[in-house]
Amino acid sequence: MRSISILGATGSVGEQTIDLIRRNAADWKVVALTANSNVAGLAAAAREFGAQVAVVADERRLGDLREALAGSGIVAAAGRAALCEAAARPVDMTVAAIVGCAGLGPVMAAIEQGGTIALANKEALVSAGEVMTAAVARHGATLLPTDSEHNAIFQCLQGGRIGDVRSITLTASGGPLRLVEDLSSVTPEQAVAHPNWDMGAKISVDSATMFNKGLELIEAHHLFPVGLDRIRIVVHPQSVIHSMVEYRDGSTLAQLGPSDMRVPIASCLAWPARMDTPMAPLDLPAIGELSFFRPDEARFPATRLAREAAQAGGAAPAVLNAANEVAVAAFLDRKIAFSRIAVLVESVLDQGELPAAPRTLEEVLRVDEDARRRATRILEPA
Amino acid sequence: MRSISILGATGSVGEQTIDLIRRNAADWKVVALTANSNVAGLAAAAREFGAQVAVVADERRLGDLREALAGSGIVAAAGRAALCEAAARPVDMTVAAIVGCAGLGPVMAAIEQGGTIALANKEALVSAGEVMTAAVARHGATLLPTDSEHNAIFQCLQGGRIGDVRSITLTASGGPLRLVEDLSSVTPEQAVAHPNWDMGAKISVDSATMFNKGLELIEAHHLFPVGLDRIRIVVHPQSVIHSMVEYRDGSTLAQLGPSDMRVPIASCLAWPARMDTPMAPLDLPAIGELSFFRPDEARFPATRLAREAAQAGGAAPAVLNAANEVAVAAFLDRKIAFSRIAVLVESVLDQGELPAAPRTLEEVLRVDEDARRRATRILEPA
Repeated sequence: MRSISILGATGSVGEQTIDLIRRNAADWKVVALTANSNVAGLAAAAREFGAQVAVVADERRLGDLREALAGSGIVAAAGRAALCEAAARPVDMTVAAIVGCAGLGPVMAAIEQGGTIALANKEALVSAGEVMTAAVARHGATLLPTDSEHNAIFQCLQGGRIGDVRSITLTASGGPLRLVEDLSSVTPEQAVAHPNWDMGAKISVDSATMFNKGLELIEAHHLFPVGLDRIRIVVHPQSVIHSMVEYRDGSTLAQLGPSDMRVPIASCLAWPARMDTPMAPLDLPAIGELSFFRPDEARFPATRLAREAAQAGGAAPAVLNAANEVAVAAFLDRKIAFSRIAVLVESVLDQGELPAAPRTLEEVLRVDEDARRRATRILEPA
Repeated sequence: MRSISILGATGSVGEQTIDLIRRNAADWKVVALTANSNVAGLAAAAREFGAQVAVVADERRLGDLREALAGSGIVAAAGRAALCEAAARPVDMTVAAIVGCAGLGPVMAAIEQGGTIALANKEALVSAGEVMTAAVARHGATLLPTDSEHNAIFQCLQGGRIGDVRSITLTASGGPLRLVEDLSSVTPEQAVAHPNWDMGAKISVDSATMFNKGLELIEAHHLFPVGLDRIRIVVHPQSVIHSMVEYRDGSTLAQLGPSDMRVPIASCLAWPARMDTPMAPLDLPAIGELSFFRPDEARFPATRLAREAAQAGGAAPAVLNAANEVAVAAFLDRKIAFSRIAVLVESVLDQGELPAAPRTLEEVLRVDEDARRRATRILEPA
């Protein structure tokens, strides 16, 4: 029996983690569960698994949470400090699935207790990559990547050595607009219609712009230190191969699977062993064909911008991420055209000198806020 | 620096092993080299690498070999007993690349010294699978499969556990006749024109009939004890994915690479590390498409016959292999039609009772000879 905390238990990754734990309930003891504001979902999960503590980020919901947990013996708490305290409780496994920069503090608290962290919070590595990986090294924590691509790479590296890697290939579906000719007239509805994965609006737009792959490139650069020039992107519309590692002898290992986040989550939960999931066997003859294309960075500049930001290091990736979030929100609000998203991000990155490299989480958050302000100012000049 | 012996040094796998060792000459000390009859090639390699001993299987060539090695200080020997003696010299790595049942004795001698054996001799596992794997366990030897498919599976199992495997998929190119309508009129020239691999006539015909995949199925059954019903075959004409392992969580690991035997050989030589090879990077966008089909066992019954033989166990796989060798030779001699190869093999397997399960190498060789006689008798009734 292993102990687990789930940060972001009512989001997509959190719910799928709970689905897996429910199927193997005897193997797990749930310590802490957290949610942003979904008190009903949080309380239900906490009661089901007998959690020690349930935390809602939104402090105004503490009363509701206490009510929902009345008589259960489960501690109810709220607010950012409570999130970090919950994340700091010693556990065998922390699933870090809070979306956005709100997850940075709790992830850092989990790292500082030196445990094993299944990391689904992109911002942790994109915006705070250097701060985060330094903390992991300092506290002897173990990061297991939960993103399907990075989890694929992680699996392909099991039994191998990073020094023997010739290259890493991130696969990209290419998104719903890969074959759309006029990108300037794309609507939010078109952009969020992802062909393979059922995801939220923000990440679906990121997939359509290829910023998602750009962010993953930055993450991969922190997780797998082979050098940026050894990390490639290949467009693979069927999303069956989730990513690949080529070794120096000419062998390439690839991880394939369904477009179901429970596969990489299960890989983290059971690592280094495996656990059952309710997936149908991979049936390649039924799929028929896997195809591969080079990314078109003239039409989709996001991966170039991300590569440049990763190369620059320091504050650049956090600025890119923040500017992109503002741009995507503006696009979803129909304030800017789809093709303007990358233009806006590039403008913010090119606007004067970048802030100094952040050395603490607080500095990362300041870079993030500053970049958001600058992006908003470009969008809505005073 | 590691010591190595190459059994079958002048054949295709032997030559490619030597090519790799030549590129990393400082890493290797060559102990024994053997050849069937190619004295010139054997002597040249033995001189180049300063081998301790060179053995030619054909005893009539001993004089020539002595002459070719005169003054080198390299011991020259000939005959079957000398092959086994050479294979028994303690080394870090034995590459077992003798073709056919002639390789069984030397492979067994290498196993008995308890070292690491890169196994390229199909017959060792097809005809003598149970005898061979029992000897491996008894002597604590390590078998590294060199066939590209089995090496792929071996790589996909690194860091994994055989108990977590849901299925193993052997990929098959489908051979040059996959889309040929009338198999009865196929000529030897058509059958040996393999689309992806440059191989000898026998193995090319085996690829055309799918007997090659059938033999590999039997090998996989001995190497990776997951149960026959968990080993599948998928036709993949591009031969880019060399084989796959699906784990119980829904993750599939695949090994991809060029159709160049130096990749799996290098994987064995450097295992568990990696070594450089002169392979171009895998370029999937240049390849464009990978396709997958179910095997058509009505047209190509070989994989069904092999599966049945593996299921029956005992002498059946050795009988299948021997009958197939006789049938292929008869086809190459234009004595029987292509479509008769599988019919002949099935006839021999179905003809009366199978011999008892062989428990020693000698018994395996007796089963082999007996099956050849029976196949020949069906072909040329007295």
